[in-house]
Amino acid sequence: MTTTDMASTRLARAAAAAAPIIEFVDSPLGRRADDPRTSNFLFGNPQEMPLASFTASLHRWAEPRHKDWFAYQTYVRTAQQAVAENLRSRYGLPFLPDDVVLTTGAFGGLSMLLNGLIEAGDEVVYFSPPWFFYEAMTLFAGATPVKIALRPPAFDLDLDEIGRALTPRTRAVILNSAQNPTGRVYSADTLRQLAGLLEKASAANGRPVYLFSDEAYSRIVYGGRRFETPTAFYPYSFLIYTYGKVLLTPGQRLGYVAVSPAMPGRDTLRRTFMATQMIQGWTFPNALMQYTVPDLEGQSIDIGHLERKRDRLVGALRDAGYQLESPEATFYLLPRAPIADDQTFCGRLADHDILCMPGSVFDLPGYFRISITASDQMIEQAIPGFRAAME
Amino acid sequence: MTTTDMASTRLARAAAAAAPIIEFVDSPLGRRADDPRTSNFLFGNPQEMPLASFTASLHRWAEPRHKDWFAYQTYVRTAQQAVAENLRSRYGLPFLPDDVVLTTGAFGGLSMLLNGLIEAGDEVVYFSPPWFFYEAMTLFAGATPVKIALRPPAFDLDLDEIGRALTPRTRAVILNSAQNPTGRVYSADTLRQLAGLLEKASAANGRPVYLFSDEAYSRIVYGGRRFETPTAFYPYSFLIYTYGKVLLTPGQRLGYVAVSPAMPGRDTLRRTFMATQMIQGWTFPNALMQYTVPDLEGQSIDIGHLERKRDRLVGALRDAGYQLESPEATFYLLPRAPIADDQTFCGRLADHDILCMPGSVFDLPGYFRISITASDQMIEQAIPGFRAAME
Repeated sequence: MTTTDMASTRLARAAAAAAPIIEFVDSPLGRRADDPRTSNFLFGNPQEMPLASFTASLHRWAEPRHKDWFAYQTYVRTAQQAVAENLRSRYGLPFLPDDVVLTTGAFGGLSMLLNGLIEAGDEVVYFSPPWFFYEAMTLFAGATPVKIALRPPAFDLDLDEIGRALTPRTRAVILNSAQNPTGRVYSADTLRQLAGLLEKASAANGRPVYLFSDEAYSRIVYGGRRFETPTAFYPYSFLIYTYGKVLLTPGQRLGYVAVSPAMPGRDTLRRTFMATQMIQGWTFPNALMQYTVPDLEGQSIDIGHLERKRDRLVGALRDAGYQLESPEATFYLLPRAPIADDQTFCGRLADHDILCMPGSVFDLPGYFRISITASDQMIEQAIPGFRAAME
Repeated sequence: MTTTDMASTRLARAAAAAAPIIEFVDSPLGRRADDPRTSNFLFGNPQEMPLASFTASLHRWAEPRHKDWFAYQTYVRTAQQAVAENLRSRYGLPFLPDDVVLTTGAFGGLSMLLNGLIEAGDEVVYFSPPWFFYEAMTLFAGATPVKIALRPPAFDLDLDEIGRALTPRTRAVILNSAQNPTGRVYSADTLRQLAGLLEKASAANGRPVYLFSDEAYSRIVYGGRRFETPTAFYPYSFLIYTYGKVLLTPGQRLGYVAVSPAMPGRDTLRRTFMATQMIQGWTFPNALMQYTVPDLEGQSIDIGHLERKRDRLVGALRDAGYQLESPEATFYLLPRAPIADDQTFCGRLADHDILCMPGSVFDLPGYFRISITASDQMIEQAIPGFRAAME
């Protein structure tokens, strides 16, 4: 009896696409994340204690108000209302509570969209360097990932290339603004041009090309810059969000997908999404977390502090001779590795107790990623090591 | 541009299979669940306030102990240890912490197994009347559901029929003991015979036929009866569990899959399951819920009270002329409807403010299901109405 193939073909293919990140987590470098002597720049994980306000909200809503407090929940109304109200006031768009689908983070939201809407054999466009799981999740949904490069140093959207990549089989484009790992926020002008391309492709295809807009970092934007939601420019848009970034609580699995108020057929979509979340394994966020949403809408880590950490570290790295842009948003700096082999270079940094992620983990060899969720102390402690590794 | 087909074919097929329950929840009868005047016997949902010990555990573990408290978590070690220890002491089987895969309830566990292990085109056997989502979830995983009837009044496993249903394409059998909705607990002898059939099929097929053992109700067993885990009898077994039943907190999404200690290739499976949970959308239970597991292992609703409710209602229904067995386990009574049309009969009960689920929702027309999670008061209030509806 064979036990060597203990995974479905679909899972095995998807896992192969995610192998760089899955293997990195379990690598000698990845496993040093728990070592308290290090300056840990690896993941968008907290390096300081959680927000007291977040913990207070958990306590507040853990207290049952009625017998159904911990009963089966699909979408808690107060959560839907709080999200819709925030989106309306932030973007001036008429988002409705009924169009807010609570999910277990942006991860869960994207999974719902891909598995609920995308046909086997459909093409899904994404941009690279990408977030770690776009390709794997697309494959797991039975679809075909189509990669478009974001070219350094600006990592702009190449609209000509997008136009050429849209085919009769294209069903969705996954766009991540503010972008992990490049820190780019796309402008209204770019988003309008992208929308034009998608409108044209939708008309040509006789069915919409969806825009899956991953806005996990939409509130982590620097320099008082205005964040434009890509969903404002194109009707067939889904706004994907997680509270895991702005609160640095990724282990608490809470986010949403908001359907564009301009989307035709929203009533049908509501039924699709509820069925998808049920059949995927009742993937609604748990009751307690849904109750906290109205509180959490008003909470945030200190973005000014993040910006000061960005400035301190960008300055120190440039002084040390590194080439990097200052990100407009997100947790991430993306310097060029001073040698071609980013993995070797990250190993060299680790010898100085500095943990960074090699670009080859996210399809960008020759670069490495620094998460500024690291504490001030970690940053100060690391600067001499960054200098030494450069020399 | 068409918007009529706003769902993937895969989702649409699966949702069609789940349509009876999805439509029932949204039906006039299902929507009366919120009406406080009713005796609500519809779902395995709480009809009394949550356990104080459960709430206390949420408070206890909401308090962060270190900076990583709400960081990304896969499997919290203390949760894995508590589960393995409980299973070892309960069943005398050497379950290991590493083989405990934390999931968002039994629902999430089954989804992980089906999507991680089952090949498109494989056959998955299940028994009917079934839990609501087996067929839909099997279809969503790309596999072919194969239904075997449990015949009233005993609803025993028909081993001959199982033997005939196992084919070269059979990849898994989903067994639910204690069984929703029949209340049956299968005996060691039956489970041993089933294991024999599966061993034989596995040998013939050259690959294992897995046993997905849904044990959501394993701690809700009456009369001091011993619960035998089906996983004790067959090596290729997965024990699926949720805390949602024994604590009546189904909204909190917490459970596990424990891999049989006799399973060959467990190291490979661990990697498969972690990848599956990541790629399904990071479906690990949230950090807070995982921390509570060692507490929750020691908590339970009052099973003696449930048993008294069972006895009271079984007695009263029989006195009123209903035909039903007294369930050995689970929340459910399963009387015959006194008229052929169970939906019409449940409508008649609803006229007496009694909410029950028609058997046609779970592939057993002519019967109806009563959840004894209803309060004593609801039960006493309903008895005259049950009598009147019979007349």
